Formats: sequence, C-alpha cells, structure tokens
Amino acid sequence: MDEFSFIKWIKSNQKKDRNVIIGIGDDCASIRINDENMFLVSTDMLVEGTHFDLKKNTPGEIGSKSIACSISDIAAMGCSAKYAVVSICFPHETETEFARELYRGINKMADAFSIKIIGGDIVSGKKTLVVNVTIYGRNEGLKTISRSGARADDALMITGELGGSILGKHITFKPRLKEGLLLNKKFNINSMIDISDGLAADLGHILEESRVGAILYEDEIPISEDAKELARKTGFSALHHALYDGEDYELLFTLSGRESQKLLASKSFPSRLSKIGYIDKSKGIRIVDTYGNQKK
Amino acid sequence: MDEFSFIKWIKSNQKKDRNVIIGIGDDCASIRINDENMFLVSTDMLVEGTHFDLKKNTPGEIGSKSIACSISDIAAMGCSAKYAVVSICFPHETETEFARELYRGINKMADAFSIKIIGGDIVSGKKTLVVNVTIYGRNEGLKTISRSGARADDALMITGELGGSILGKHITFKPRLKEGLLLNKKFNINSMIDISDGLAADLGHILEESRVGAILYEDEIPISEDAKELARKTGFSALHHALYDGEDYELLFTLSGRESQKLLASKSFPSRLSKIGYIDKSKGIRIVDTYGNQKK
Repeated sequence: MDEFSFIKWIKSNQKKDRNVIIGIGDDCASIRINDENMFLVSTDMLVEGTHFDLKKNTPGEIGSKSIACSISDIAAMGCSAKYAVVSICFPHETETEFARELYRGINKMADAFSIKIIGGDIVSGKKTLVVNVTIYGRNEGLKTISRSGARADDALMITGELGGSILGKHITFKPRLKEGLLLNKKFNINSMIDISDGLAADLGHILEESRVGAILYEDEIPISEDAKELARKTGFSALHHALYDGEDYELLFTLSGRESQKLLASKSFPSRLSKIGYIDKSKGIRIVDTYGNQKK
Repeated sequence: MDEFSFIKWIKSNQKKDRNVIIGIGDDCASIRINDENMFLVSTDMLVEGTHFDLKKNTPGEIGSKSIACSISDIAAMGCSAKYAVVSICFPHETETEFARELYRGINKMADAFSIKIIGGDIVSGKKTLVVNVTIYGRNEGLKTISRSGARADDALMITGELGGSILGKHITFKPRLKEGLLLNKKFNINSMIDISDGLAADLGHILEESRVGAILYEDEIPISEDAKELARKTGFSALHHALYDGEDYELLFTLSGRESQKLLASKSFPSRLSKIGYIDKSKGIRIVDTYGNQKK
C-alpha cells in the first residue's frame, strides 16, 4: 500500500462541512468557532522502527519528538499551540520508569511551548511502542496559512538548515512555533509547510496544492553540517541530503518579493533565513546551479 | 507497568489552565470556548491483539469500532459529536483493499452519527495495526456530565444489557450518542460514564471521582443473552460476566430519585433502561441479592 495515494483516496471521500475551513490534506485541519476564531487540529502517530529506534533514542527523546512533530504542524499554519491529547501503546513488558521518562519528555516539550496536556489514552499491546499526539491551536485572530496559497513570483524561503537529520536533529529538533507565529503576525505569508518529508517533497506539496511550479537555486539552499557529514558516509552529495532527507522540521514558506525584502531586512528574526528560489506558473521543481543552468 | 496507576501519576502532574474545565481522568476533556460553549475532546487508541483480532474481525469492523469507542466517550458526557481525526499505522505488507475496507468502516460509523473526518495521519510500521481516533464534540449549550457529580441517594441507572461482549458486541456495538444527549437535554443527570472497563470497574470510577459509595441490586442488573451463553462456557455466572466483562459501551448514570421516576415514566426513550441501585455516603460497591443480603 502506498501511503500518499491512500491519503488521496481518503481526501476524495471527504464530506464537506461549512465550519471546516481546512480539511484533510494540509498540516492542520481548521474548524470555525466564530467569525474571527478557529481551532486548529493536527494528529501525528509515531511508531517504533519507523519514527524512532529504541536502541538509539532515549524514552525522553521519543516523548519529546512525539509532541514536537505536532507542534511543528501548528507552526506551519502560523498559529499558536494550546492543548494536546496523548495516546500511548506500551508493550506489555514496559517498565514503569521507562513510561514515566517518555511522558516526562512529552511534558518538557509541552511546557517549553506552554501547551497543556488535557487527556489521553494509555493502552498495552504485544510488541510495538506507539505514541499518538493530537494537538489543538488557535489562530489568535490571524489568518491560517495553508499549503495552497503560493502565487507566481512569490519568493520561496526557509528557516534554519537542511539535511542529515537522521544524525540527531530528527529527534532533538525544536519546532519553529515562535517563528511561524511571528511570520504570520508581521508579514504577509502566502503559503507555508513544515519539512517532514524533505525539501523537494514538501515543496512539491505546496506546488500541487497551489497549482504552481518553482525554481530552486542550489547555491542558496542552506546545507547543515550534518548533511555534509552524512554525505561523506553515503556517497550522495550534501545538497542531495538537503533536498531529499526528511524530518528537518524547518518552515518552508512563500511571500511576495517585497515582503521577503522586508523580512530579510528585519534583524530580529530568531532563526537563519534563506531565500532559496521563487514560484512560477509552470509545473514541478526546476533546480538551477551556480552557472544558471537548469539541472532538472 | 500498571496502566491505572500510570494514569494517576500523569493526572498528578497535570498543569492547570483556566479554560480547561475537565482535564485528564474523565471520558472527555472539555475546553471553554466562551461562556456557554465548550469543545469536548477524547482520544482512543486501538491495538491489534488487545482491542481486536485480525483472525476474527473484518477490517470494516475494526474501523467501525475505532471510532465507535470515541463516540461513546462523547455520549458519556451527554454531548454531541462533530469531528474526528484518525491516525492509522498499517503494517508494511498491508494490501490497499484492506486499508480501504478499514477506512470505509470508520466512514460508515462516522456518517451514521453525522461526524466529519477532518484530518489524520497514515504511517506504516513493522507489524502491528494501530488505529487512533481523536473526536471533538460540542455541548450545544448544555452542561457536560462528568464522572464526579454523583450524590448520595441518586438512583443508579444503565442503558441496554451487560456482559459477554466478547461474543460480538465489543466490535459491533452502536454507541449510545443519541441516548446520552437525550438524557442531558431532558433530565437532570448528575454523573455519567460509558461501560468500557466493566460495570463494577466503571461504577468504581464514578464512586472514586464523586467520593461516594453504591448499593447494587443483583436482580436488577440487565444481563445480556451473550452473558448467559458465555457463562455456559466459562463456568462463571452470567451475573459475573455482566459485572466484570468490559466493552459493553452502555451508559451508566446517576440522577435524583425523582428524575429517575420521570425518566422511567417517559415512554419514548430509545433503549432499555434499568435502575440497578443507588448511591450512598459510604465507600465502595455493595451487592445485594434477592433476599436483601449484602454479598460483598
């Protein structure tokens, strides 16, 4: 079974509701409360062997990542996170101290962003450790930034650095919640997504939902030290890792050229910012190298 | 690890928030939207081998149960269910048709109660099938009925029949959403819970949260045909199965003697109703037999 085509099938069977402003297929769903206020909802399931490794990751790290992924989804809407509910399936033989350490990891990350855990479900199963977090945000009177608002000529920008997250960042990352909210409050952002599937794949989601294309300047892509280190081991280029590795949890967004100038001129933004390309009317992603040649 | 003591530990670490009216430890959490309106939230994780059996249950039944459990939690608050998000971990080798059948089971149950699926997460894992549903309800201007409102002299009542759910009802049950909302609209219900852990255990939750005790009349407990059939196989009594089997998903509630008379006199209630005992000021549950003798 292919997950992406299954999600498309689910989306095609979705029922309409006048209070559901954003439904299946974005980082969060949004439900209208009244004219100005919306509830944002996102849910993430993390499974042993797919999203974390019990041999490499501590229970605290696993807990921390479980909620951080969901916080990142709220960040990608430019909204603030408020509450979460947490379901955990512990394998039958789980020690109480392991369970508490995992939960402390969740609580610590929640506390760092003033998110309250308001409920959950604790079950036990045969083997696999599974954590599901559903998170609730509020738009605070702001618009919610979806994947579908990118316009031709928008600048394409990204927070932080990309690639090689498997060396550590995928589990220890700090979600860009403050950055997302700041972008939404101070600038006119047209579309946004968090990098979970990888820059190329997640840019692809924006392009598909917005029905536009993009030019990427390979020299402008912020490549992390981990991408370089990983490249020495894998034989792929560091750029390849920056483009295709998942789980960076940086924010990729588009805004008018003018807004991007304003943003780059503002000195107080809390993370590195890179303008990595622009949106155009064609289809797909074209990568341009140092000499201006299109690679793809 | 003991799940109940772990949940107590989680609850003891819970942070307060002025908009969280009901937090960890009830059927749902409730968040204040404004003076009259609240959002109800509940999350349930169903795991292969614990909550369903791939050899006995069809994918459609598994999907149906996954959301029905959550609907039942909203029913236990006397509220209406509106939206749900669904996370599923499919084992790597899952066939597309299996996945679709499971999802159709979720959709069919959601449709039956006019609930919209607004988002989710589809992941794949090594072995175990896991489904997590988080559901949202609204109180529709009504109060939310918690576990903690039972008062001495309240009548103790239950919908439907109990016991032997393992023979089928645990997976094919229809949650008592209409009944819960009707009880809340038309009668003054002091406390309510849905029977997931079993009559004795779930009554215990009401008693603990309300700091009261209860008398149960064993002759008044509505014993299902499945409890009787199961009793013939297990050697336990049918009453034992009605008291201790889980997953009946009936509603157990308390209300004043006068309100209970009013309820029993109303001919239009859509399910069987039984008055099975009453609340008193002592501690724990005492069971009274046909001859008026306390058994425990």
